[in-house]
Amino acid sequence: MIIVQKYGGSSVADVPSIQRVAQRIVAAHDEGKQVVVVVSAMGKTTDQLLQRAKEISASPPRRELDMLLTCGERASMALLSMAVSELGHEAISLTGSQSGIITNDRHSGARIIEVRPIRVQDELERGRIVIVAGFQGVSYKGEVTTLGRGGSDTTAVALAAALSAEYCEICSDVDGVYTGDPRVVDAAQMLEAISHDQMIELATHGAKVLHAGCVEIARRTGVALYARATARRAGGTRIDLAGLAADVDAVGVTGQKQLVRVRAEGEHCIDRVLEAAVAAAVPALHLDTDMESADLWFGLADVPDWPSIRASLQSRLDILEGVGAVSVVGDGIGGDTVKLQRARRVAAEAGIEIVAMSTSPLRVSLFCEESRVDALVRALHRAFCERP
Amino acid sequence: MIIVQKYGGSSVADVPSIQRVAQRIVAAHDEGKQVVVVVSAMGKTTDQLLQRAKEISASPPRRELDMLLTCGERASMALLSMAVSELGHEAISLTGSQSGIITNDRHSGARIIEVRPIRVQDELERGRIVIVAGFQGVSYKGEVTTLGRGGSDTTAVALAAALSAEYCEICSDVDGVYTGDPRVVDAAQMLEAISHDQMIELATHGAKVLHAGCVEIARRTGVALYARATARRAGGTRIDLAGLAADVDAVGVTGQKQLVRVRAEGEHCIDRVLEAAVAAAVPALHLDTDMESADLWFGLADVPDWPSIRASLQSRLDILEGVGAVSVVGDGIGGDTVKLQRARRVAAEAGIEIVAMSTSPLRVSLFCEESRVDALVRALHRAFCERP
Repeated sequence: MIIVQKYGGSSVADVPSIQRVAQRIVAAHDEGKQVVVVVSAMGKTTDQLLQRAKEISASPPRRELDMLLTCGERASMALLSMAVSELGHEAISLTGSQSGIITNDRHSGARIIEVRPIRVQDELERGRIVIVAGFQGVSYKGEVTTLGRGGSDTTAVALAAALSAEYCEICSDVDGVYTGDPRVVDAAQMLEAISHDQMIELATHGAKVLHAGCVEIARRTGVALYARATARRAGGTRIDLAGLAADVDAVGVTGQKQLVRVRAEGEHCIDRVLEAAVAAAVPALHLDTDMESADLWFGLADVPDWPSIRASLQSRLDILEGVGAVSVVGDGIGGDTVKLQRARRVAAEAGIEIVAMSTSPLRVSLFCEESRVDALVRALHRAFCERP
Repeated sequence: MIIVQKYGGSSVADVPSIQRVAQRIVAAHDEGKQVVVVVSAMGKTTDQLLQRAKEISASPPRRELDMLLTCGERASMALLSMAVSELGHEAISLTGSQSGIITNDRHSGARIIEVRPIRVQDELERGRIVIVAGFQGVSYKGEVTTLGRGGSDTTAVALAAALSAEYCEICSDVDGVYTGDPRVVDAAQMLEAISHDQMIELATHGAKVLHAGCVEIARRTGVALYARATARRAGGTRIDLAGLAADVDAVGVTGQKQLVRVRAEGEHCIDRVLEAAVAAAVPALHLDTDMESADLWFGLADVPDWPSIRASLQSRLDILEGVGAVSVVGDGIGGDTVKLQRARRVAAEAGIEIVAMSTSPLRVSLFCEESRVDALVRALHRAFCERP
């Protein structure tokens, strides 16, 4: 049975870490698994390479930037492969191209269009442990591409799907998915299981463990994920189609800061806020519109160059900064008026003004002043995720 | 007209150096040349990557080592390409594989078996400056390989030959080829021109400017080379089939230290010294044999692990260490008894004992105690390269 393990940059930050990861890989292989490993660049390597590029050019050609950044994963996969060999197991490292990760040609943010893991399968058949460079692929034009944020997770899930793997383990320095950020909520609990859909809502609205994009691929292809600590071999959170039989009101509460609202009023208001979204090149967190005005919310962390975008927008649009949001995620919550009311009441009781609200079937988000986000996370967590 | 420029690691050691190299490249392009650039890894990058591999394994799998080391050139070529773009010229970086550098599958010391620079030619046709990763290729099996010592020079010359380039410029922190090492011989002069054959003799016997292997390819393919300082746009030494019309006795004098002699006596003596050469995995500098004994000389700098090889040889062979050699290179010198006698007399007058002598048509080498090499270089340079 094939399994895919993905190790993030902090798990391979130095030689001792690489050696520990090698032992973890070998342990799975010794249990009879066919192991495919997807690895990120060591520690801060990608940031350092990016920094060097920025010293040369404020906006380096993206093709060249991809050529540069992919060095990070090539180095870490080769070193990890050596470390596995040193433990007496046969290993081989493969680039994105060699692994058959075919992408479109949008450099620095390419999308996987096909995975042809023929070489990976061949090497597994030979009994080898296969170490694949995360975050990178090859375009149909034969150019080296990178997948953008969370790219290594995406590589791992796409490979797991193409190989019909038993599951895909996303290993990091985090134990699993929690009901709330443990740094904010003392009572936060690790979840044993969660559905893909719930995880996508959590990831889109502030949870950092997994990237929404990779979970979306897992949902579409039916791949089961484990979010697990590199330091442990079991436990963690299982993310699959079913999730956990729900006897709680919500699976988690997440907070987001550094949000911004752009508002247009009068005629063509919706056109103008959509134009703003295109300028910022980010998906909207929430769009609200009526005949007279339209509101668009997005997260500044995803906006490449906010100051210049703000400058271009502020003559025509009303811009509100310093805002945050708290989201409660649970099946059916967004359509359950009793729970929505309860959420509003919790905020009111905590003395936190809510400037907007948005819902999806699995989620309600309350927008408030940035400085009140943590307090609202704690209050909503208590109300929805903790048993009285 | 196509030209190939090769820049060594010290020429691209940091961002300002890369920017200076970019200006030098653009200057050639502005003169109407089609410019192909071959670049080494930045500064000490290769050594650092190698060091990291050694922390993981005393003898890492060579395929993985090649995967690791090739990151160095990928990073430098991408950064150099960005720096050229920043100057307003179109540039594209290509890996060894993308440049069509096809090698055999001997990892860490692959030999180029074919160059198919189709992509390079396409990009040149589009008016682009092409930046190629030195030192690397792709085996006919599709694996990433490296070319061993002097590999980037080899890439440059092989590409120049395949592209029928006007010439190939080898740029480094050295001005050109000198009649002697300027750190040893005050009167050393830079040569304006030298033949491929003469350069091969100099490089094989101690000159550091160019690797013999790349000059051999240049000779075979008729490529003219320039050894030139990166800091200068003209001058340097031209290395071609003709060399310079000789009105001097010799083009140069080189010294070598850290040589070793292995000697076998009695029956099968020649077999035993050849076996020793195979064990050391290096070409002989000189082999001397008669019915009763055989001597083999080689340079320790080229031997991967001399202590263990010595241990395996010393029970059966007489080993002499601490020896050096001084070579005088000039057309016809090795067959000119008058000049050979003069060389011996110079050594005798300097009070230096000669333990062996070897000749080729273009060279005479005198073997002496290591500590006397510099003195003998100076004496022979005065006798053969300086006008009275």
